[in-house]
Amino acid sequence: MNAVDLNCDLGESFGCYTIGMDEAVIPYVTSVNIACGWHAGDPLIMEKTVALAKKNGVAVGAHPGFPDLMGFGRRPMTVTPSEAGAYVKYQIGALMAFVRGQGLELQHVKPHGALYNMAAKDEALAAGICEAVASVDKNLIFMGLAGSVMLKAAEEKGLRVASEVFADRAYNDDGSLVSRKLPGAVIHDPAVAVSRAVKMAKEGKVVSINGKEISIRADSICVHGDNAQAVELVSKIRNALVEAGIELKNLR
Amino acid sequence: MNAVDLNCDLGESFGCYTIGMDEAVIPYVTSVNIACGWHAGDPLIMEKTVALAKKNGVAVGAHPGFPDLMGFGRRPMTVTPSEAGAYVKYQIGALMAFVRGQGLELQHVKPHGALYNMAAKDEALAAGICEAVASVDKNLIFMGLAGSVMLKAAEEKGLRVASEVFADRAYNDDGSLVSRKLPGAVIHDPAVAVSRAVKMAKEGKVVSINGKEISIRADSICVHGDNAQAVELVSKIRNALVEAGIELKNLR
Amino acid sequence: MNAVDLNCDLGESFGCYTIGMDEAVIPYVTSVNIACGWHAGDPLIMEKTVALAKKNGVAVGAHPGFPDLMGFGRRPMTVTPSEAGAYVKYQIGALMAFVRGQGLELQHVKPHGALYNMAAKDEALAAGICEAVASVDKNLIFMGLAGSVMLKAAEEKGLRVASEVFADRAYNDDGSLVSRKLPGAVIHDPAVAVSRAVKMAKEGKVVSINGKEISIRADSICVHGDNAQAVELVSKIRNALVEAGIELKNLR
Amino acid sequence: MNAVDLNCDLGESFGCYTIGMDEAVIPYVTSVNIACGWHAGDPLIMEKTVALAKKNGVAVGAHPGFPDLMGFGRRPMTVTPSEAGAYVKYQIGALMAFVRGQGLELQHVKPHGALYNMAAKDEALAAGICEAVASVDKNLIFMGLAGSVMLKAAEEKGLRVASEVFADRAYNDDGSLVSRKLPGAVIHDPAVAVSRAVKMAKEGKVVSINGKEISIRADSICVHGDNAQAVELVSKIRNALVEAGIELKNLR
Repeated sequence: MNAVDLNCDLGESFGCYTIGMDEAVIPYVTSVNIACGWHAGDPLIMEKTVALAKKNGVAVGAHPGFPDLMGFGRRPMTVTPSEAGAYVKYQIGALMAFVRGQGLELQHVKPHGALYNMAAKDEALAAGICEAVASVDKNLIFMGLAGSVMLKAAEEKGLRVASEVFADRAYNDDGSLVSRKLPGAVIHDPAVAVSRAVKMAKEGKVVSINGKEISIRADSICVHGDNAQAVELVSKIRNALVEAGIELKNLR
Repeated sequence: MNAVDLNCDLGESFGCYTIGMDEAVIPYVTSVNIACGWHAGDPLIMEKTVALAKKNGVAVGAHPGFPDLMGFGRRPMTVTPSEAGAYVKYQIGALMAFVRGQGLELQHVKPHGALYNMAAKDEALAAGICEAVASVDKNLIFMGLAGSVMLKAAEEKGLRVASEVFADRAYNDDGSLVSRKLPGAVIHDPAVAVSRAVKMAKEGKVVSINGKEISIRADSICVHGDNAQAVELVSKIRNALVEAGIELKNLR
Repeated sequence: MNAVDLNCDLGESFGCYTIGMDEAVIPYVTSVNIACGWHAGDPLIMEKTVALAKKNGVAVGAHPGFPDLMGFGRRPMTVTPSEAGAYVKYQIGALMAFVRGQGLELQHVKPHGALYNMAAKDEALAAGICEAVASVDKNLIFMGLAGSVMLKAAEEKGLRVASEVFADRAYNDDGSLVSRKLPGAVIHDPAVAVSRAVKMAKEGKVVSINGKEISIRADSICVHGDNAQAVELVSKIRNALVEAGIELKNLR
Repeated sequence: MNAVDLNCDLGESFGCYTIGMDEAVIPYVTSVNIACGWHAGDPLIMEKTVALAKKNGVAVGAHPGFPDLMGFGRRPMTVTPSEAGAYVKYQIGALMAFVRGQGLELQHVKPHGALYNMAAKDEALAAGICEAVASVDKNLIFMGLAGSVMLKAAEEKGLRVASEVFADRAYNDDGSLVSRKLPGAVIHDPAVAVSRAVKMAKEGKVVSINGKEISIRADSICVHGDNAQAVELVSKIRNALVEAGIELKNLR
């Protein structure tokens, strides 16, 4: 029987500022990526979000990002592999204190936003990040874009990897994501997104933007809890996966 | 034979900004308190400072402070015990990633600056901080002001404590520090500071500002590496302790 | 004919984070206090909020606060009068660039949160702040708590002052606000808040928590746009003031 | 008689952290670029640095940079022209409060670090920045890299421009700077730097890295006060310019 993980970004609020429907989306997912205080999140939010994950029995991952709260970590910054590694190490460690403090173990690390996108294409940067993750704990799973150089870098550092796919994004023939600047990059029809999620999880296949069926490894499907519609889509994806006989379980 | 620890704040540089003569002072001490990126320090500095500690064979402690880089963590902020606890947990975890990444274990935690001074007097705040430390790792040693409520709070949370004394500060009859606002609070004569350090380490006694000999527990003596004179004083204190037959060793 | 200003905090969002119903509340007020990027707000938000004020024809004031985004500027910090003055000067200047860039003039300055509360009681701090405001522009109006030392400090620096009152807060016999820690400090009944606003604006009187009618100068009434109920209250206060024959106009 | 401005970055310290020999270098220059609290500087430093400039009779410019204190504003960040404009506007305004508070007028604006380098090549970014500068005050002078698109953008927005040259950097045949990644990019021989400065100021010529004499407009020569050797070089450049009959004066 096939199995897949459903992951969602969580704990992105900051101080008095609230973002995301964390409590609404968490019942549907199996793993969460918790912001670590740089692009989003703060210590009180981290504590609370880890508790929410514990209560819901989902696995916890770290979601380290750029030091850019004003830009939510979505803006590329030119950093060296050493800087990226040190930033990731810092944020993983910070989250670990809350995770272990509540008697849990950190399951995975997934870079956030611009750091994720850059590490998907830049081998040296990816190596810096993965080296850092491995140095903190060899047993951490590294989650990254399916088919990208960051998964390769993680494997080279001896880390277990989780290949992440997107239900609502179009893919090129080579398995890379279609740039958001191009038409058709985002799939807006929930029914299409749901069926693509099932196909990726069940068959390891997706139809590219050029109509070609390509192979894609789907260890985890990324979903969102930004608003009510997003949460609705998550519940549909989950139901469709279950109906298709796919087991939903985290990465351990 | 008596023994004492010599501790010094380290890793307080930030980005392009350098503070402290870390390399000059470290040969003389047995433990260091490393800034964790909030009041001072950054991930690259933390990585480098942990490496420096490892190379010199000194024990590493975390030195968490207020989120106030502009004020170097020296300005009191009104935070709740929960906030203080979460801030401390975050910073300890962040440093731990670098410490464990280099194959070391974190020895102790010592609050920095205004957080230290406030926790020395505020039981609820001290309890929030110590609860946080204990939740991260029960084996961490909590370093705090000799005779203060923060050591009591740490013991109540089941933590081992290290009682810290200052060679260059005057004490009141009750063992508290004379406020810096009062005359005589700081001892400027190096020879006096050295002899007080020896007396505290050897006899567990210090002469108060009123001329009364009082008891004081000296597990660790705080020294400074801010400038060449400070480093010179550290070397004198170290030599005097050795000559007095006191063993210099860290807290483990 | 009596007149009064209605002021509201605006522009408190930050980056991707949204707080406050700025567009809903602005039609009801005559002056707005715009956050300046320290406790809330950022340059893009400031630009947009000044444009919103211009479009609605309301007067713009600066709302400088502590460097504490995580605590929304609500936590007391120990700063010197010089520090407070420099922080206020920095933030006023930053906002002025957007105000003048859109062809407007800054009307007033009102300290935010903990800075406001501290300046209401601490003469030296208030003097530092008001000195800074006056040095930037002698024509700025200083808005502060009715009857507090900060208005006195502002007058001593030659600034025009605006005495601010709160419709939903209880007052002591001496005209100071009842501490939020005490029962009855906040008035939850909208009808009572509305009638108190009218009485303060029309008669310059308010009934203290002890039932005594006291004098209070009401140049501006503070209202809130945090949520739909708050906006509803603002519209009720405005309507009641108009019905009572009180003119609503800004401070110029 | 020829004239040239000598400009130097100033006020780059932050909180307890000190960088730069501001007091040593300022007697030799005619204009200073003061950091505005984002990549360096803070309100207290800005107040103090403006006072230093006033005392030495040098003209004051704003030196806005990226929101990246950890990287000293030297790391490229992907921002939109609107973001860059708003960031620059914020920082100019903040500095203006101190400048006007001390009875001075702001002379110029020069982007810092990565923002400067990016604006020298990216027309849209440069337009966003210059639009912002012009909106704050049409009389501000925009200082930028000689021959670059940012000077063109500034002129298109109706700003007076100052063409900046570097005594210690090699130029390509087209007048652009040789990349620091290439050999020969930086001129280490003080005598050569001095003679190039004189030639640029006197003749408007410089010998490119390929040995070709090219035209270059030198309204202002950039010098540094980072350390004693740098200050020594500034004094030599100044003396050589004076001996060559070139008047040293600021941009007004």
